[in-house]
Amino acid sequence: MISQSIVPKPLGMEEISLLELNDRVLAKNIISPFDIPPFNRSTVDGYALKAEDTFGAEENRPIRLNVCGKANVGEPPKVIVARGQAVQIVTGAPIPKGANAVVMVEETQQIDDKLDVYGSVTKDENVMKKGTDIAKGERVLKAGQILSSKEIGVLAALGKAKTAVYVVPRVAVISTGAEVTEPGKKLPSAKIYDINAYSISAAVLRSGGTPIYKGVFADSRVQLQNAIEQALASADVVVTSGGVSIGSKDLVPPIVDSLGKPGIIVYGIAVKPGKPTTVSLIGNKPIFSLPGHPTSALLMYHLLVHPIIRSLSGKAEEVACEVRAVAGTRMFSARGRRTFMMVKLKQNKLGFPTAEPVETGVSGAITTLANADGFVDIAANQQFIEANEEIKVTLLNR
Amino acid sequence: MISQSIVPKPLGMEEISLLELNDRVLAKNIISPFDIPPFNRSTVDGYALKAEDTFGAEENRPIRLNVCGKANVGEPPKVIVARGQAVQIVTGAPIPKGANAVVMVEETQQIDDKLDVYGSVTKDENVMKKGTDIAKGERVLKAGQILSSKEIGVLAALGKAKTAVYVVPRVAVISTGAEVTEPGKKLPSAKIYDINAYSISAAVLRSGGTPIYKGVFADSRVQLQNAIEQALASADVVVTSGGVSIGSKDLVPPIVDSLGKPGIIVYGIAVKPGKPTTVSLIGNKPIFSLPGHPTSALLMYHLLVHPIIRSLSGKAEEVACEVRAVAGTRMFSARGRRTFMMVKLKQNKLGFPTAEPVETGVSGAITTLANADGFVDIAANQQFIEANEEIKVTLLNR
Repeated sequence: MISQSIVPKPLGMEEISLLELNDRVLAKNIISPFDIPPFNRSTVDGYALKAEDTFGAEENRPIRLNVCGKANVGEPPKVIVARGQAVQIVTGAPIPKGANAVVMVEETQQIDDKLDVYGSVTKDENVMKKGTDIAKGERVLKAGQILSSKEIGVLAALGKAKTAVYVVPRVAVISTGAEVTEPGKKLPSAKIYDINAYSISAAVLRSGGTPIYKGVFADSRVQLQNAIEQALASADVVVTSGGVSIGSKDLVPPIVDSLGKPGIIVYGIAVKPGKPTTVSLIGNKPIFSLPGHPTSALLMYHLLVHPIIRSLSGKAEEVACEVRAVAGTRMFSARGRRTFMMVKLKQNKLGFPTAEPVETGVSGAITTLANADGFVDIAANQQFIEANEEIKVTLLNR
Repeated sequence: MISQSIVPKPLGMEEISLLELNDRVLAKNIISPFDIPPFNRSTVDGYALKAEDTFGAEENRPIRLNVCGKANVGEPPKVIVARGQAVQIVTGAPIPKGANAVVMVEETQQIDDKLDVYGSVTKDENVMKKGTDIAKGERVLKAGQILSSKEIGVLAALGKAKTAVYVVPRVAVISTGAEVTEPGKKLPSAKIYDINAYSISAAVLRSGGTPIYKGVFADSRVQLQNAIEQALASADVVVTSGGVSIGSKDLVPPIVDSLGKPGIIVYGIAVKPGKPTTVSLIGNKPIFSLPGHPTSALLMYHLLVHPIIRSLSGKAEEVACEVRAVAGTRMFSARGRRTFMMVKLKQNKLGFPTAEPVETGVSGAITTLANADGFVDIAANQQFIEANEEIKVTLLNR
């Protein structure tokens, strides 16, 4: 339903420098502009020479050549190797003109400028030819790849000081609720500290977005509307929490719906927990209005917001990490609603972990958050999962 | 051997704000300074009352009470509930004094200030008692925990605007080599672009360190020595690459050994690739001098440097991620040396992936880096792994 209305495409690209590429997403295919290595290189320490000069050389019948110079790493060789000549060379140094092979130092003995070669080499032996690692024009990396040390190494090898990557989605995070106070302030009577702005901001970072903290809006409709409007102007995605349940102070849905077209596209989701969740679209910017309950908010973030932020950042769809477990107890679904049961995994003797439900029934329970490893998905038409039944647990993207 | 000489302990702690905690490591146990919730709260929409006033209420025999006010979320209730009275209440609002239970709105009918209650409730029903989520004095998080959305949510709930975490290790990254040029500059004849400073810097970020790019030092002993000295002064760990092999221009080991005590503690490691690796300690700061070959450097980083940086940042030892696979071909070990064979995994019909070796023999091959999924560890006393043999592949920490 949501994926039909929101088609999240990468938001654009920017050129950034090599040292900032970690975990970014490549926006264009990378074609090598030159051969790598850009010249024939020796793969050993030894002597560059003409292979045909070594034919017939044996341990007890060496062939004598004249040493006519030295090839160093990083320096264009000045000598040209003629028949009967050899050039001392180290690993990685360019092969001098005229030479077509390298004999290893262990197979030789040099006395002054005379070299005795005790074994033969064939053409190209111990030579890494120009372009054998990467040929000019070869596509070495593909748009959409997530860059880490390995890919960044390849970009460096191509000399690319800057690379085009997708921009990072900006995600505005707003908390609402008459009872919510910002951490760090004194806690007034009847209030609790805001959790969601912080847990959701951390989750946004994990999804590959940049969270923009907008603060807590208690009960002023005007201030909340201004905050959401400003968030829409400065961010690509807006996530609110609280203010969407059935109570009398539910400000968020009417405000969001008044801000533009198409407005609310999903009003309430038939799952537990998370039912009072709305998804809106103002122009092409999604607004996710999550429940105030911290565990529900984070679960709905995981299920709805995380995949959208990944897509906006150009990352491929993630395969949810599921593990097999055994139900530690009978788990009931909420009547007629698909139910996500938060569970903690404990190792048992059978090899499978046992999944024990973590208390979520109590509105506002925050320890649920810290204790859960993942959730069990119980279908709407399934009354319960039996104790000891084999189940799948989806690990929460921490 | 290395772990005997280097005892990596967290480097110290700093207080940082909630929005910057993601992926940091908690430096102290967290004890709750107050009860959560800090007051008794309603878990439903309904009426707060004395449970004993509802005893005997049934669907066809309601009990009538007087509505004497309203309890809102975020506001200390002004009324006190006496016998025969009820207070309208919404989910999350504080329970007014005198009340000890909440009857759900669905079980009632209000006409003007009269309330008919069609079912009885017991004491504490629909009430989340003060401190039932977290009790004052309870240890809710443990030093050493890596902080993500869930734990950050708990810290927010406690009102902690700042939290003590371990400092992030600073890792200076230096490239050496007469043939190496910085990306972005024109590539002179006989030179190649530096790879290692960039691939290693990205790997440091993944390990949880802050890379400090120090640049490329070609062949001046004085400049290289100055750079390493400055790196030691400004960083907690120094990683160099190149300049450690057997050739004549191997500058790094003697320089490092001259900088302080104990100096070089590991000179060469009997593995392939990676043999020309030295580990030094100047005071309590480790210096890792890795090979110049990009794949070898990154592999040695993974095996030696990554665990040290994790420990310095206070993170627990990581269990290497191993997968079972089938050898796609016979894989030989280097004579008498423990061999790490870089492999790519391909899905086959048996369910197991097949591990195909990725070319590493050629010095300087960079495509190896981008193509490998992990490595196979072949013991020094094992001549080869047979094709189709079941093996373990350690996935590379990307």
